[in-house]
Amino acid sequence: MKVGFIGLGMMGRAMAQHLIRGGHDVTVYNRTVGPAQELAKEGAAIAHNAEEACHGEVVFSMLADDAALQEVMIESGIIARLSENVVHVCMATISVPMARELTRLHAAHGSAYVSAPCFGRPEAAVAARLAIVAAGPQRAVARVRPLFDLMGHKFFVFGEEAALANVVKISGNFYVAATIETLGEAFALVRKHGIAPDAYFDFISSTFECYLNTSYGSIIAHEKYLPAGFRLPLGLKDVNLALATGEAVNVALPTASLIRDQILSALAKNYGNMDWAVIADVIAQNAGLPTGIKGT
Amino acid sequence: MKVGFIGLGMMGRAMAQHLIRGGHDVTVYNRTVGPAQELAKEGAAIAHNAEEACHGEVVFSMLADDAALQEVMIESGIIARLSENVVHVCMATISVPMARELTRLHAAHGSAYVSAPCFGRPEAAVAARLAIVAAGPQRAVARVRPLFDLMGHKFFVFGEEAALANVVKISGNFYVAATIETLGEAFALVRKHGIAPDAYFDFISSTFECYLNTSYGSIIAHEKYLPAGFRLPLGLKDVNLALATGEAVNVALPTASLIRDQILSALAKNYGNMDWAVIADVIAQNAGLPTGIKGT
Amino acid sequence: MKVGFIGLGMMGRAMAQHLIRGGHDVTVYNRTVGPAQELAKEGAAIAHNAEEACHGEVVFSMLADDAALQEVMIESGIIARLSENVVHVCMATISVPMARELTRLHAAHGSAYVSAPCFGRPEAAVAARLAIVAAGPQRAVARVRPLFDLMGHKFFVFGEEAALANVVKISGNFYVAATIETLGEAFALVRKHGIAPDAYFDFISSTFECYLNTSYGSIIAHEKYLPAGFRLPLGLKDVNLALATGEAVNVALPTASLIRDQILSALAKNYGNMDWAVIADVIAQNAGLPTGIKGT
Amino acid sequence: MKVGFIGLGMMGRAMAQHLIRGGHDVTVYNRTVGPAQELAKEGAAIAHNAEEACHGEVVFSMLADDAALQEVMIESGIIARLSENVVHVCMATISVPMARELTRLHAAHGSAYVSAPCFGRPEAAVAARLAIVAAGPQRAVARVRPLFDLMGHKFFVFGEEAALANVVKISGNFYVAATIETLGEAFALVRKHGIAPDAYFDFISSTFECYLNTSYGSIIAHEKYLPAGFRLPLGLKDVNLALATGEAVNVALPTASLIRDQILSALAKNYGNMDWAVIADVIAQNAGLPTGIKGT
Repeated sequence: MKVGFIGLGMMGRAMAQHLIRGGHDVTVYNRTVGPAQELAKEGAAIAHNAEEACHGEVVFSMLADDAALQEVMIESGIIARLSENVVHVCMATISVPMARELTRLHAAHGSAYVSAPCFGRPEAAVAARLAIVAAGPQRAVARVRPLFDLMGHKFFVFGEEAALANVVKISGNFYVAATIETLGEAFALVRKHGIAPDAYFDFISSTFECYLNTSYGSIIAHEKYLPAGFRLPLGLKDVNLALATGEAVNVALPTASLIRDQILSALAKNYGNMDWAVIADVIAQNAGLPTGIKGT
Repeated sequence: MKVGFIGLGMMGRAMAQHLIRGGHDVTVYNRTVGPAQELAKEGAAIAHNAEEACHGEVVFSMLADDAALQEVMIESGIIARLSENVVHVCMATISVPMARELTRLHAAHGSAYVSAPCFGRPEAAVAARLAIVAAGPQRAVARVRPLFDLMGHKFFVFGEEAALANVVKISGNFYVAATIETLGEAFALVRKHGIAPDAYFDFISSTFECYLNTSYGSIIAHEKYLPAGFRLPLGLKDVNLALATGEAVNVALPTASLIRDQILSALAKNYGNMDWAVIADVIAQNAGLPTGIKGT
Repeated sequence: MKVGFIGLGMMGRAMAQHLIRGGHDVTVYNRTVGPAQELAKEGAAIAHNAEEACHGEVVFSMLADDAALQEVMIESGIIARLSENVVHVCMATISVPMARELTRLHAAHGSAYVSAPCFGRPEAAVAARLAIVAAGPQRAVARVRPLFDLMGHKFFVFGEEAALANVVKISGNFYVAATIETLGEAFALVRKHGIAPDAYFDFISSTFECYLNTSYGSIIAHEKYLPAGFRLPLGLKDVNLALATGEAVNVALPTASLIRDQILSALAKNYGNMDWAVIADVIAQNAGLPTGIKGT
Repeated sequence: MKVGFIGLGMMGRAMAQHLIRGGHDVTVYNRTVGPAQELAKEGAAIAHNAEEACHGEVVFSMLADDAALQEVMIESGIIARLSENVVHVCMATISVPMARELTRLHAAHGSAYVSAPCFGRPEAAVAARLAIVAAGPQRAVARVRPLFDLMGHKFFVFGEEAALANVVKISGNFYVAATIETLGEAFALVRKHGIAPDAYFDFISSTFECYLNTSYGSIIAHEKYLPAGFRLPLGLKDVNLALATGEAVNVALPTASLIRDQILSALAKNYGNMDWAVIADVIAQNAGLPTGIKGT
């Protein structure tokens, strides 16, 4: 299949590579040309602007946020010039209103829009073990499905309204944030009672087996917030997305409100370059525990 | 080994049975005689009062709460009359001060006290798949260890201070409560956006694989709060234990505070006979969703 | 002094009237002409568009929100065409970024911008008993001061940075919201214990004498949320402004987070046309008390 | 009237003095004799134990908490030996269950119990400007009324069930705590935006005139948490009373939950000897503001 891929960050790069290796004819575009050149070695064609990556049957976008998407795909006028049978698949975490706007724009021009945000860190993208949550016109989703299968090992469809996939993705990120908050409180409680974090990590990751406990539990137990797997300001963005998605339908998310407050306190302590699990350090400090963060 | 077992509820019954089947000489006691008679068929001796179950090397107690323990083991004067080499193992969820008091009383009389609360519902107890968290004098824990292995498949030791096992157990129950709260908020968010609970359950239990998501996610998705696996007032007891355990060392647990408030709202709606996952229904109602609870 | 006044809602109308009665030469503009015609009877000149109200020494704007200000004063290009010695005074509750943007735009064109949001309901505006919080270039504030004295009885200046007056105003509205939440919780507590709301209102308004307790306490005690003095969606706007103003400098406002959640629950119950004190009814319902709202 | 007074702390001393000066025949008792000797100079008789202060028509108790009352009045057996026509008036802040227990005990012995907790700091007690909240048997309250009028300037009766006065008192202390929390958040917000605390204090105490804003606003603005007017651990006691009073009737008080968490964080920072307004410093530190507390 002739496919375009726009946005070659850590995630996008790995995803595009799987498409190439799956035998597809892939044209890639990135603001800086380095990542595209890497993929060219594997057989990708390099587009010199985003629009050149939109001439296939499917075009994926994996851009940072609403603003990037707004600039690259909407303000550029690309969508208005797409051929009618193109499917645009956005795999990034964007807001529900942005997904609705893309749906509207594509529908107006006869092309199709699919939201397909995914779960998994860069390692999972490399291993083709993403969990992909898709929604959009049934025929469009079906057409893209073989491509998703090259990138992920779990796949969920939430109907024809694309934005619903974003609702689910945003709720999932909220779930992750809540797990971090809970772990942070639990670690503070047991540490203040004199229990060794390592011993507690063994307990919690074994008793409640879930990769979130293993990965975030380890970060918290060892107070290893650098280098960041997912930086704190991105965490704020995601929690704010959850709150906005709730506000849109009058749903209070008190746990999200609480986490937002913790993140602000962490930012106030200048932890903005750290992993968002660093809210556990804010909790620890409020409990009167020594911080594990150097230089503070 | 000659062993006593006091308290034959759903959990205690299954645990005592594993000891019998493991070849031990088990004397059992329960306030009502029915469960003891059941175990007698398998070879248990029946004690006519709690003290008769205390003549072996080890005596287990699996009583409902602090108050029951206070009455049966302390006010009765049993501990004061125990022989010196007895190990008392309390496997129930009790408070940290109660564990400290038991430690003090046993030490004063020359016997040993081990806290060994456990994770797992009655089915897990039947399947000998409990996770057991122990703490107490090293020799005492070592002596009892073969008996724990008959009841559980995971075992953690948190040093010589018995009460620390209770701190860990209480923190674990808090973790479970927090997961329920998070699931409740996530389900309310997606349901209000029109997503089918069943589809969301598939997503959440598959993406964040953890038996808590599977078990509680299913209850919430199907709004099946009856029959209760763990009744709401017990949930309040556990969350209050977490808050008290935090207060004892000046650790705030904002998520526990939030859950306590949700439980009170659920009790105010007369949901006291339901599973504690029913706080998800309070969240749903506050989101303007129809309640799934009959007769309300 | 030659003065313009843009935006003749309940508040603006009363404020403009005081300027007229104070002997000033006032030109008024409102989207709908009715309120302007009323004021014309008292001596105001009617502007046929916003710009015609901008030819004096001072122009007041009292528009609903950021969006209205953006449209009327910024997108229209008015500011760019103002004469250099004009002072623009915005007395509405707007966001900090909007106040910064107005400061920047006026500075770029040589005119001056003063933020002067005020406290007081329409009755207070009519009685010239507003509390006015101003900030902006010292000379500009001094020039307008005699006009403020015609409208209010309390006056505070917060320096030369206009946006700081908005920070103070937003914090004040947050204070009001927090008082409502506290009263709501206190009333729910005592009502559930069987205490008559009227008796409690006497106590609370007398013991903690403050007009907030008198006004909002009375609304809550009598569950009289209609007609709304300040509608719930405006309350959400204000609490969101507080949260955003905190987020801009990494300050968590947990009480504001909590109130936002209560407001969302109230909106989910379709209380959008009621006074924002109706969050007390959400609290009461969560406490298992009967709602005082008809038709629910 | 022949009157006894038990408990001569800062508050009790001033209250007893007003009774003496009002011409009553007052017998006083205090654990340490100093304060009693002071009052003897004004004409009080000194009791050598609590019971000797119980031979008049009315006996007031102003002891620190439930535990002191339990020991002095209940475990001592005094109530059981009271003459039938004595009225016991407890003016301290005690729990609802304790007030119920006193009601029960007095009723069983034919004497009468009145709860009459009061609002006001020691200065107010000295100035006879307390606000007194009473409840109890109508005849008993009427009998004591002239004595209350000597101590306070505001008086509220909440019916015949004594414990209801305690519910009201506890709700009032919660109101005070919530005001402190709100002020703490508001000050953090404006300080982080660069506004001078003194200027903000002028604004807030003038715009929302209430002695709470004046007194606590001043403490927070000047970060003057020592000497403590009301120590932090007493604040925790009061907030826990509010939470327990809510739990007894299934009423969630989310603001009280939040404040409890802030107090724990303050205690974790070793602020236990400071005024409970010090939670404002916790809020400020979480906002990244420098603490005003010396030596930290």
